[in-house]
Amino acid sequence: MFNFDLSGKNKYYNLYCAIRGEILKGRIKPGERLPSKRALAEELGVSVVTVQLAYEQLLAEGYISSRERSGYFVEDITAYSAHATQPSTFAYPTPPVESFKIDFVKGSTPASLFPFATWARLIRGVLADCGEHLLERVPCDGDFELKSAISAYLYRARGIIVDPKYVIIGAGAEHLYGVIVQLLGRENIFAVENPGYGKISSTYLLNGAKILPISVKEAGICLNEVEKSPATVVHISPSHQFPTGAVMPASARSRLISWARAGNRYVIEDDYDSEFRLVGKPLQCAFSLCPEKVIYMNTFSKSLAPSMRMGYTVLPPKLYEKYLQIFESSANIVPLFEQKALAAMLNGGYFERHLSRLKNHYRGVRGLLLEKLQNVCNVKDTGSGLHIIAEFPKAENDEEIKQKAAAEGIKLKCLSDYLIAPASGYEKCAVINYSGVTREQLLNV
Amino acid sequence: MFNFDLSGKNKYYNLYCAIRGEILKGRIKPGERLPSKRALAEELGVSVVTVQLAYEQLLAEGYISSRERSGYFVEDITAYSAHATQPSTFAYPTPPVESFKIDFVKGSTPASLFPFATWARLIRGVLADCGEHLLERVPCDGDFELKSAISAYLYRARGIIVDPKYVIIGAGAEHLYGVIVQLLGRENIFAVENPGYGKISSTYLLNGAKILPISVKEAGICLNEVEKSPATVVHISPSHQFPTGAVMPASARSRLISWARAGNRYVIEDDYDSEFRLVGKPLQCAFSLCPEKVIYMNTFSKSLAPSMRMGYTVLPPKLYEKYLQIFESSANIVPLFEQKALAAMLNGGYFERHLSRLKNHYRGVRGLLLEKLQNVCNVKDTGSGLHIIAEFPKAENDEEIKQKAAAEGIKLKCLSDYLIAPASGYEKCAVINYSGVTREQLLNV
Repeated sequence: MFNFDLSGKNKYYNLYCAIRGEILKGRIKPGERLPSKRALAEELGVSVVTVQLAYEQLLAEGYISSRERSGYFVEDITAYSAHATQPSTFAYPTPPVESFKIDFVKGSTPASLFPFATWARLIRGVLADCGEHLLERVPCDGDFELKSAISAYLYRARGIIVDPKYVIIGAGAEHLYGVIVQLLGRENIFAVENPGYGKISSTYLLNGAKILPISVKEAGICLNEVEKSPATVVHISPSHQFPTGAVMPASARSRLISWARAGNRYVIEDDYDSEFRLVGKPLQCAFSLCPEKVIYMNTFSKSLAPSMRMGYTVLPPKLYEKYLQIFESSANIVPLFEQKALAAMLNGGYFERHLSRLKNHYRGVRGLLLEKLQNVCNVKDTGSGLHIIAEFPKAENDEEIKQKAAAEGIKLKCLSDYLIAPASGYEKCAVINYSGVTREQLLNV
Repeated sequence: MFNFDLSGKNKYYNLYCAIRGEILKGRIKPGERLPSKRALAEELGVSVVTVQLAYEQLLAEGYISSRERSGYFVEDITAYSAHATQPSTFAYPTPPVESFKIDFVKGSTPASLFPFATWARLIRGVLADCGEHLLERVPCDGDFELKSAISAYLYRARGIIVDPKYVIIGAGAEHLYGVIVQLLGRENIFAVENPGYGKISSTYLLNGAKILPISVKEAGICLNEVEKSPATVVHISPSHQFPTGAVMPASARSRLISWARAGNRYVIEDDYDSEFRLVGKPLQCAFSLCPEKVIYMNTFSKSLAPSMRMGYTVLPPKLYEKYLQIFESSANIVPLFEQKALAAMLNGGYFERHLSRLKNHYRGVRGLLLEKLQNVCNVKDTGSGLHIIAEFPKAENDEEIKQKAAAEGIKLKCLSDYLIAPASGYEKCAVINYSGVTREQLLNV
């Protein structure tokens, strides 16, 4: 009876649209009986649930009616159309088509590597295990089970001893930046790395805080500039700065801590990308040097999936008390369901297994990439993180680098594109973010 | 072998703690074999998943090891304890015990009325239907399917025609208040209702905006005060103001719209509680009078469950364009999973079925409550929402009302407790929020 293309996502929505279209065009007549859910599911090679959801939406909008024990029948829509016009006239937006063969800008973990079956199993497990407790209000700082799981993970992965109490669950990095502004006060001046990840400065600005761009050298954020500045908070990503790739040596971290100790100052350690140190052991974090002065944070968006906006911050005890004062009457922003599933993923060891699979994948991509770039440019690679810097000393300027790449179907940006404030010394360097790139794509360019 | 109390929530966590305790106390010896997952699940009357999750956590922390085809064995923890000390020493926090028999302050929908089985089925359905697409990045304004489902729901329930495009999905009311500040700019002065829901003003302040408390009369926010004030944005809950219960008549809504039209001004219509008009039809909303000047918003926290921090706002087209400009590069904050499940719940008609069940429940509670209060106080009840005002003209003061109630095991607040700024005319009135109260509780006081 039906012959629809349901290969895309939102299968049930597509099926619903297709059947609705047939009804509106009069190809299925009023009074006609639709195939049973099971029969249609078999015919189309989709799950019964998909058909059921589509039928339910058609039912809710009055296109079909259900008669007990007989099935689903098409309604007379000429009588109905007066009501139907509203919800039906809005079109499903079509995403723009990208013309690049390879994208070194956006980049997100390949979905194929995500242990979807495990995750789905954990979700079903959480549903069965927690039952109606999933409906309960989550304390403002997050579910204690996830807080504990993260504390245990931080001990295993980063060697940090953290009382789970001080772990705050948030909805990804941007949300946590906002929380930090609310916590420290927007009268603070936030020193940010320049060049840097644009979201950091734009989110601080959006939250009404003042920012102060500080240049990034080989040893990370320039401490001479910080010390001379009126900044009261410094936001750093010491394990692998984006986009320069700078790794902050231990001595620089101590010096920054001394700066923080000398006043009412804080260091925000954005441990971005630290999971992806592909060569050697992860570096000690600044947090362990001085937990009273360092706000540690990280997210799972890069390591799990971009749709899971989940992250956490570890607060110094004093700030934790202030957090409770401000937010005690609010529920945590991340659904309990997601928190329980992630806790099970961490506690069951699945997260670390997934990470090591991801790292293997990226080692392969990185190896091929370095090979391909060998005679083309000077590569600056610190072995950390999911991007490298490719210097093209002979290029005229950054525009030329990008245009030449685009001509070969390669999308990329240069260091200068990540400048928050004008600065020199960052020219002729492409930023090769390979987190969303596969070996196959690389072989084809 | 085991005899644990697993009646509380977090069954698997409790089981994990219990077994770990036995191991640490030496009651289960190194090398000893644990019962099979299935056997222990049967013995304790829990699901196999629960036991599996507990075993997995013990495995991850090294308390037990697994040998293929033989089962789980207790490790020698004397060798291990050096590593184990860190994550084991932190205690699970115990929630404070409430001593009141009845709570007219907090109040959240009774979990027993939530269609948990349906919701669990929809979640399993979404897992099967969407598969790995659930991992994809969600556009900044939310999943289009949920946006459409909300648009269709608003048409059915509130008679508003809304292009799904302009619906923005957010993580509950507080998150959306913050987004609105970022959208309109914190240089605005937000007029808020006084007395009012404290979270509204505190969230605006926390986001760096200025607020201006305006008194609430019988016809809602006092328009004379608004018109004389320097406010540029007015935040109202016209269907059923909290806590006064005021309902804003159509004429007042039009007058407020005229005020907004006369300048670069906006009205935020917080359609809080509009689902719970228990007598008569819901009132027309201000949004439909002037979609260019009204930011409509509502949440599902009250109607579904407090753990689901999900809400939405409908933006005027101009503000929608600005929203895209600011947030285009950000992913939506609510997990796609929850968005798909809610869309299925709305499209399948389950949400409205749940609402009508809730309303029946609340009609029963309300009836009994009005009966009980008949000879005790003057009741002001507009038939809307889940709270009523009980006036005690003979009481000495508000403190006496609360103390007398507390003596009978009743927790309540007075109108004056919800004042954001000092104001008179709100004395001797108790706020009876019955959203978390059952008939059984009422019969026992």
